[in-house]
Amino acid sequence: MTDPRLTPLAAGLPATVPFTGPETLERAAGRPFAARLGANESVFGPSPRAVEAMRAAAAEVWMYADPEAQELRAALAAHHGCGAEHIRLGEGIDGLLGLLVRLTVGPGDAVVTSEGAYPTFAFHVAGFGGMLHKVPYRGDYEDPGALLDKAREVGAKLIYLANPDNPMGTCHPPEVIERMVNGIPEGALLVLDEAYVDFAPAAPRIDPADPRVIRMRTFSKAYGLAGLRVGWALGPADLIASFDRVRNHFGMGRIAQAGALAALGDQDWLAQVRGKVAQAQDRIAGIAAGNGLAALPSAANFTAVDCGQDGAFAARVLSGLAARGVFVRMPGPAPLSRCIRISAGTEADLARLAEALPGALQDARG
Amino acid sequence: MTDPRLTPLAAGLPATVPFTGPETLERAAGRPFAARLGANESVFGPSPRAVEAMRAAAAEVWMYADPEAQELRAALAAHHGCGAEHIRLGEGIDGLLGLLVRLTVGPGDAVVTSEGAYPTFAFHVAGFGGMLHKVPYRGDYEDPGALLDKAREVGAKLIYLANPDNPMGTCHPPEVIERMVNGIPEGALLVLDEAYVDFAPAAPRIDPADPRVIRMRTFSKAYGLAGLRVGWALGPADLIASFDRVRNHFGMGRIAQAGALAALGDQDWLAQVRGKVAQAQDRIAGIAAGNGLAALPSAANFTAVDCGQDGAFAARVLSGLAARGVFVRMPGPAPLSRCIRISAGTEADLARLAEALPGALQDARG
Repeated sequence: MTDPRLTPLAAGLPATVPFTGPETLERAAGRPFAARLGANESVFGPSPRAVEAMRAAAAEVWMYADPEAQELRAALAAHHGCGAEHIRLGEGIDGLLGLLVRLTVGPGDAVVTSEGAYPTFAFHVAGFGGMLHKVPYRGDYEDPGALLDKAREVGAKLIYLANPDNPMGTCHPPEVIERMVNGIPEGALLVLDEAYVDFAPAAPRIDPADPRVIRMRTFSKAYGLAGLRVGWALGPADLIASFDRVRNHFGMGRIAQAGALAALGDQDWLAQVRGKVAQAQDRIAGIAAGNGLAALPSAANFTAVDCGQDGAFAARVLSGLAARGVFVRMPGPAPLSRCIRISAGTEADLARLAEALPGALQDARG
Repeated sequence: MTDPRLTPLAAGLPATVPFTGPETLERAAGRPFAARLGANESVFGPSPRAVEAMRAAAAEVWMYADPEAQELRAALAAHHGCGAEHIRLGEGIDGLLGLLVRLTVGPGDAVVTSEGAYPTFAFHVAGFGGMLHKVPYRGDYEDPGALLDKAREVGAKLIYLANPDNPMGTCHPPEVIERMVNGIPEGALLVLDEAYVDFAPAAPRIDPADPRVIRMRTFSKAYGLAGLRVGWALGPADLIASFDRVRNHFGMGRIAQAGALAALGDQDWLAQVRGKVAQAQDRIAGIAAGNGLAALPSAANFTAVDCGQDGAFAARVLSGLAARGVFVRMPGPAPLSRCIRISAGTEADLARLAEALPGALQDARG
């Protein structure tokens, strides 16, 4: 039953959630997964310096953290070569997307995304009454031209693009994104989700002051801090400042800020992680090939593996893997849903995948 | 300049923030405070078991936390003697208040609070376009009768009451709150902020399933985990479930859940903290009396000290304390603003207060 005191907007929202957590699946199955390869976490962990910083901060956690996060914002600003006025922190990109949609999208406002792109963005757009317009992927890539055309057609406030893409792992080269920025219609904002950009060969050159773009970054992926909940938005100062009108000012904790700061300072660790991810992706591609499947090229820390049939088949493969203790996810709509999405794992994780996949495929075919 | 893409609601919001953090004041002053007594943090810290749990969780922080926080919610449910369906977690009470206002308050909807009550609640109501109606305190207590009368008059969706009260520290006995619940008009919801209830002699008996009330609790105060950002809402299952429609599902991190769980399990520590807070409050009252000022009775972990003149005078006392390295805060509007609000400190903190207060008063008078 819906509480009668909800607003009409809230009362009309579905009770579904964007993602079911692996812990919920484990509770349903009655046992933990042996390989956790579904959430694109970094199994290689955070920098030991970040772990040390978090442990030290635990003793000071009786204090609220600096609501302006001045130290971390200054370090991020130096990292990007811009001023701290271009940066705001949030509880992961998920939290920042929610704030951005709240700031810019009112009931009925048009927003453009791709069919099969990040469900949590769609969750927030629905949550504020926005009207989501979707364009198809083109050859497993999000389609900048189609996104811009649709944005012009519907008068979109926001255009969402993840590059590298999740769930497919494909990545447009910098010049494609830079050209897209030049085509953004008046009144629209490109929300460029760069959660996985640390794994990409190159990032587009975009001036943080460019009023047409806001970029979303995170410590959850390459920095190995998914469970810490720290993301940052990078964009024009006016828009960035407006987050202060609505954000939970004391929402970013003390251990979170300390861990993120230390992680940012250890770029050597990041380079090591990138190397391990590349190795893991080679291994995933090899496992796929050994089972007659094709791995898509990926610029992220996961690999989409084409199971060669339709979404129902891929879903059976996914279930078969889960039954064998291997947690992966898959894209929702066709034609993306012919794939399963496998996060870069440790050697042990991928040995379990290699062991589980033949049986999962056999069950799916039988 | 305001970004032209903001919604009319967002564009109309002020750029002010509910609270300036002590770190911002320290940066402005060019030096840290010697005594941090303004944010009602627990200087006595969290349970050592919580510190240990947070340190252990740091190694696993590459994983997202369980978005349903099943283990922590189950422990809280056991603590309250109810089912976990009555509980949702959030990034502090601040975060939960934002979600609750979003769920229930649309543009123009009436909300009732007290003049001088928690500014962050007002921030959220403004942020969703609600119309805030205020009633005065009555003898330094929030006034349940006046709140109910006003709620009836304006057709309020929400009625906010903090008990114990912040910023005054006064506390209604359980039967007054229980009587208030019985007077809540149809269609209204009492938001009972019990951030400080762990310091109160007794809590009202309210069935978590009671559709008229939602209670807000936190690990930030007595549990000493302000910098961890974990609060919980306790209320009727339908309303509680509706948080899932809008919340940041993966917003509560792994270290946060682990620390809170361990803290909840150490009720002995809580009892010790309560004892230390009571001692500190006696000391604050003694310091006040030694300077010819009266400390108000408090059921929280802070004490409002009546400076005996108007708000401008109290503000000068506050400035004088800050200049002497002692951070305190004060209520905004008269007549509450005759007071300064001093958090329970360590003996060293309060020695600094004792040293600073005479000079601060002398400056304020001169």
